[in-house]
This record gives sequence, C-alpha cells and structure tokens, in this order.
Amino acid sequence: MIETPYLLFLGDAPDPLAAKVAQGIKDWRPEFAVGQFRMEGCKADMGIPDMTLEDAKAAGCKTLVIGVANRGGVISQAWKKVLIAALEEGFDLASGLHNLLREEPDLVAVAEACGRALHDVRVPEVDYPIANGIKRTGKRCLAVGTDCSVGKMYTALCMEREMRERGLKASFRATGQTGILITGDGVPLDAVIADFMAGSVEWLTPDNDPDHWDLIEGQGSLFHVSYSGVTMALIHGGQPDALILCHEPTRAHMRGLPGYQLPGLDALRDLSLQIARVANPGVQVVGISVNTQHMPEAEARAYLAALETEMGLPATDPYRFGAGKLVDALAAI
Amino acid sequence: MIETPYLLFLGDAPDPLAAKVAQGIKDWRPEFAVGQFRMEGCKADMGIPDMTLEDAKAAGCKTLVIGVANRGGVISQAWKKVLIAALEEGFDLASGLHNLLREEPDLVAVAEACGRALHDVRVPEVDYPIANGIKRTGKRCLAVGTDCSVGKMYTALCMEREMRERGLKASFRATGQTGILITGDGVPLDAVIADFMAGSVEWLTPDNDPDHWDLIEGQGSLFHVSYSGVTMALIHGGQPDALILCHEPTRAHMRGLPGYQLPGLDALRDLSLQIARVANPGVQVVGISVNTQHMPEAEARAYLAALETEMGLPATDPYRFGAGKLVDALAAI
Repeated sequence: MIETPYLLFLGDAPDPLAAKVAQGIKDWRPEFAVGQFRMEGCKADMGIPDMTLEDAKAAGCKTLVIGVANRGGVISQAWKKVLIAALEEGFDLASGLHNLLREEPDLVAVAEACGRALHDVRVPEVDYPIANGIKRTGKRCLAVGTDCSVGKMYTALCMEREMRERGLKASFRATGQTGILITGDGVPLDAVIADFMAGSVEWLTPDNDPDHWDLIEGQGSLFHVSYSGVTMALIHGGQPDALILCHEPTRAHMRGLPGYQLPGLDALRDLSLQIARVANPGVQVVGISVNTQHMPEAEARAYLAALETEMGLPATDPYRFGAGKLVDALAAI
Repeated sequence: MIETPYLLFLGDAPDPLAAKVAQGIKDWRPEFAVGQFRMEGCKADMGIPDMTLEDAKAAGCKTLVIGVANRGGVISQAWKKVLIAALEEGFDLASGLHNLLREEPDLVAVAEACGRALHDVRVPEVDYPIANGIKRTGKRCLAVGTDCSVGKMYTALCMEREMRERGLKASFRATGQTGILITGDGVPLDAVIADFMAGSVEWLTPDNDPDHWDLIEGQGSLFHVSYSGVTMALIHGGQPDALILCHEPTRAHMRGLPGYQLPGLDALRDLSLQIARVANPGVQVVGISVNTQHMPEAEARAYLAALETEMGLPATDPYRFGAGKLVDALAAI
C-alpha cells in the first residue's frame, strides 16, 4: 500500500490537463492532497499550498506522488534532481508513468540507501487470463468518449459518489494510473499485454450481486487512432449493460493528433453500440456526460439542454451539475 | 531481424501439422529454407535436404529455426543437445515457442560464450512509439476476418507472391510469430503493451514508394471479444487503403467462444470500413478471401460465385484458386 498523505509533484507540466493525476487525487481524496511541488515553467496548479520538500515533510506527507503525465513517458533529468532529494528527505515515490521508477538505476540506488519505496502503479502485478466472453452476473456501466481525456474517469467517480449517497451498490473500477492511485487497486490497462487486455477487464469486473453496478473507468476512444485498441478491449471485456457518452465540446482536434477531428456524439453512440452488442446484445446508451469546464455556466446549461433535445438522452456535466440524471437513467434499466 | 538463410529444425515432430512453422517458411520463403534437421522419430518432411549442422554451416545457413511445436510446452533435453551444438557451430537460434529460449539458462550461457543470438519472436525487441496517426506515403492493404484463424496470413502471403510475380512492389508485413519466422522480421503484436500496439503497426509499415503496397498480416477479429483490441490497433495503426474480408464458412462458432456466432461478411465490411475511415477516409473494401479447405472444390466454387453476386466484390480462396482477383482489385485502386 502507498503511504498517505501525499505531496503532489506537478513538475514542469505544460498545461493543466497534463496534471490530471494530481487533479484526480485532489478532487476525490482531498484529505491525501496536502501540498504541491511545482518546478519552473509549471502550467498546472491544484490550488493547494506550494511546499518545499522540507515543508511537506513537516506537514506529515509520506509519499511524493508524480501527479503529471507525459506522452510516451520519459523521466527527465530536471525531475530526477527533485525525486532524489525527496527520497533523501524520507519520502516514498509513487508513479503511474510508463517509464518506471524501478528502471532508473539512480533512483533505485538512492531508494535502497535511504530505505524508501518506489511504487510503479502502472505495472500489472497479476497474470490476467485471456477473455472468455462468458456473461457475468451483476451490472456494468462504461464511459466511452469522443476523445481521450474528456472526463470518463470523473464521470464514473461522480456516478459512484451519487449512487453510494443513494444507498445503491456501486464500485468504481479503475483502469488507469490515476484511478489506481485514488482507489488503491485496479488494472493498469494501457500497460497490459495486448492478448490479455479484454481478459484483464473481465478479471476487474467479476460476477457480482444482481443489483450491483460496476462503474468502469473508460480509456482512450474508439476514434483515437493511438489508443482505440484499448477502448475496444474495455468494451468487449467489460460487456457493459449501460454506456455513458463523454465529450468535451471545446476541443479543436483529437488530443495529440492535430490532423484528426472529434467525431459527433451520434457517431460515438452508433459505433459504441454496434461494438458493445457483440458482447452484450442488451446494452443501452443511457446518458451523456459533458466536460464543460471551458464554458461559462449559462453556455454550458444551454449546450446540455440542446444536446438532450438533439440526442434524446439525459445530458449533464456530472462534476459541475451533479450526476443525478445519469444515475436516474441507470436505475431505470 | 533474424539472419537468413535458415536450417529448419523439425525435431521429433509427431506429425506434419506440428511442423507448420517450418512448412510456412518452406512454402513462402523457399530461398530461406536451405536444409532441414530431423531427429529420430520425426514424422514431418519439408522435402528439402536433410543436413547435419556442419552441412548446413557449409551451405551458408545463419540461423537454426525451431520449425516445430514442442510437446507439453517444454524444450526437451533431446532438443537441447542439438540446440547447444548449433550455437557452438555458430548458428543463431530463432523460436516462436511459448517457452522462451532466453529463459533456458544453459542456452543463454552457451549463446553468450559463443557470441550467438537467441531470437524469441514472441517477445517484442523494439521500443515501439505511440501511434501519431500521420498519413504515410505508399499504400497498405490489411486482411480483416469474421473470426480468428480464418486465413488472414495466407491471404497476405498469396497476394504478395502474386504481386511480385507481376513485377509490382509489395511487402508482406508480419504481425504474428509464424509470419515473423517466415520473413525474418515483423511485430509480435499480441505481445505488445496495449498503449504501443497501434504505434508498432505504424513502425512496421513506414513511408514507402507511392506505388508500393504493404500487405499487413491481420490478427484476431473485430467480432472476437478476446482479441478485438488487437484488430482495432491494426486497423488504426495500419491506416489501410484497402481491406480484404476473410472468412471460413464452416465454422460453427467464434474460435474458443462457444457462445458467440460469427458475423456475416456484410457486418464485417460495414464495421471495418467505419473504423478504418477514422485513420484513412479513402479506404475501400476490395475483395473477399475465403478459406475453403473444408469444402469440396465444386462447393467452394459455387460458394464463391454466390458471394460475389451477393456482396458485389471479387471473392476467391487465394491459396486454392490463386490471388489474381484480389490483386486485380488492388491494382485498380
């Protein structure tokens, strides 16, 4: 287990979106997010106290969590200096990066010398089976998106919180490093070997009570050419009963792919349903979750209202306006 | 990259089917198949010269390829003796077995001492990039199937041979163990980490001459819940200009999934096109490849004729009746 509370390391995050790991911890486990450590040029801010390593130590932080994601994932020399100082100061390190802490000889050496732990939450630690496609008991809801990073994890977390407040049986099922850092377990799906992806999702969402909902964290997008295979495995391994469509209306192009436009929500609905029916013919699209963080409130509300009319589905920004509509729709299945 | 030509190791193959890797090399790269090494009791025969290790060395062989599936997943002591002698004689070893050469301490020790390479083609040996989706020069054709193991690799190999005979520029691009051993190069896609699947396919099929065709070996099926994520990554990483639909008409259910029926070729066409257009809006379905090995010839020909009418596409069994129709269709793009 990773020792809490945390000092959130934001590094030199090029934009707020790059720090979504830190943001997730701050939003969903605020009691763990004691302080943040930012380097020169950092464009992210969690709105919590900036701390030196010494400050954080004095405030009781046990682990420095790398709260910033990087495409492809290289641990830079600029980061290294801070990470080594943190180990020497007595912090454990936790990371969800592709490039593992445990594969950096200098970090390993210092961690050993200081008796500190290196947690790579991205590394699968289970021998997942190959998916067998057999229908499981209990119900499953999966968030699918028009793009990466449009709020699929937040949607599932918001719905879990709302469902638990209503006394419903619900479990957020983490499939990414942020979710795993938040909940303490899950499947680091993007690091799983191709043949075992769908099987790992079956493993993550086993038989359950008939009235229990797994709220599966989505990954990637069927329309994002870099990661669509991961999304496909989530749909076929998760065999969802319900899909939530996720969207971010101000995105100019697919994340990281300047030549690619976002699909419409109707295209997402149609393709997702077609694919999900292979594993679960009864699957339904129950609602739309819109990340409206870049829209003024009046504009966001107008956008959602128009979307409900256009798509004939409940639409909300669950983080901003609550997940009630989505949970109502789920409960009606 | 595996050094060629090969000495094909057939070991103590209990029947010809056990030596299907060797058979594939002999069929598709006869120039690599210089000789065969058979042990006592071997029931397979490639119809090429039996050679001692010394003979094969003198004939220019660079690599001993394990062309036979082993019993019980163990590399037997009887094999070991030959493999060690081969390393000492100066051969590299190449294998697609589940049990890795590199996990056999004696082989590793001898290979190191002799400066020879151990190629386990099940294991990726390249740090593949994350897919960037940028349009590449040259053309690409991908075989997609209604199910796994319906003849996608043979379809691509048949087309490559036909195209080369016509003086067209064509390269078979291997994405599975057998294909990699046949050609000496490729991506073991089902063993690639999820996030890098599509990137590995981009890496495999780089910029090329405008009139050059990559014939990409397909994997899995969009309709096979265990492996559909791999297929998805092939489509989006490969950004094919042309798709060939592959089918095996006598299959009772999806391979390994008794509860799942095969989709129709029309469903395969529609879903594949929809997905492939994300990466390449100009993609076309150009033909149908049917594995008719379990049908008498007259029945096979009637089936193909009916299919051509029904689907409005050229249909053939390229292994049985030639790939001419498919290549004609490709050349017409």
